[in-house]
Amino acid sequence: MRFAAPFVLAAFTAIAATPASAQFAKAEDAVKYRQSALFVMAQHFGRIGAMANGKVPYDAKVALENAQVVDEMARLPWAGFVPGTEKVGNTRAKPEIWTEQVKFREHNEKLLAETPRLVAAAKTNNLDNLKSAFQSTAATCKSCHDSFRNQ
Amino acid sequence: MRFAAPFVLAAFTAIAATPASAQFAKAEDAVKYRQSALFVMAQHFGRIGAMANGKVPYDAKVALENAQVVDEMARLPWAGFVPGTEKVGNTRAKPEIWTEQVKFREHNEKLLAETPRLVAAAKTNNLDNLKSAFQSTAATCKSCHDSFRNQ
Repeated sequence: MRFAAPFVLAAFTAIAATPASAQFAKAEDAVKYRQSALFVMAQHFGRIGAMANGKVPYDAKVALENAQVVDEMARLPWAGFVPGTEKVGNTRAKPEIWTEQVKFREHNEKLLAETPRLVAAAKTNNLDNLKSAFQSTAATCKSCHDSFRNQ
Repeated sequence: MRFAAPFVLAAFTAIAATPASAQFAKAEDAVKYRQSALFVMAQHFGRIGAMANGKVPYDAKVALENAQVVDEMARLPWAGFVPGTEKVGNTRAKPEIWTEQVKFREHNEKLLAETPRLVAAAKTNNLDNLKSAFQSTAATCKSCHDSFRNQ
């Protein structure tokens, strides 16, 4: 047990030094933040999906506006996945987010690689390009949800 | 009563043609959207406030990152104030948002004029400039809350 106290201190220091945890006044705020950012992103992404799936008429300007918001929002939610918040509030976050952090971060980074492509596709003013980029981005969302979100 | 049906039809057409209402699958989503966007914005704005008020050390890079997110988020919430959503869900939105739309929009636009100044101030790498821009932006938030948000 003689390593217990230093270990706890080191762990605390590591957490305190992590910007993500330092950013939120309380754990509930971190959960609300990530859920809020994901919800806003999903709303805008859904509007592109409605065009890609022919449910609403294609409007290149609106598609681009939404793609740009998706791209901006895609950077945000991850800071809210603070260690220790997996059981806070009403959340579908799986514990694997924290036990498989490398894999989780790979998914985050894959999305961050996808959303600029979605913007670029929207800028071509070509519905087929938009459809293709939408489907690719949607597959990235789904892949992460399948691994890290309870249904 | 002979004008009732055309009036209802005209009102329905007006709502259906409004992009804001067309953007959301249901009223609850509009409320959740605006609350989510405002919450994300407030989290980032609060981090600038913590620096401006000396609660955390000034970090020019972090200040700028947060100011840029505030500026991006500031464009979003207003689309969620769809007419008819003032009593949906758990909301502090006052009916005046819809009965005094011109004034409400003036407040929205004032914020949209403030947040680029907040970014510009953050880019000067000068804490006094950041403080000044933070206070000015915070006053804009408060002014709108005083008129349009229940306490």
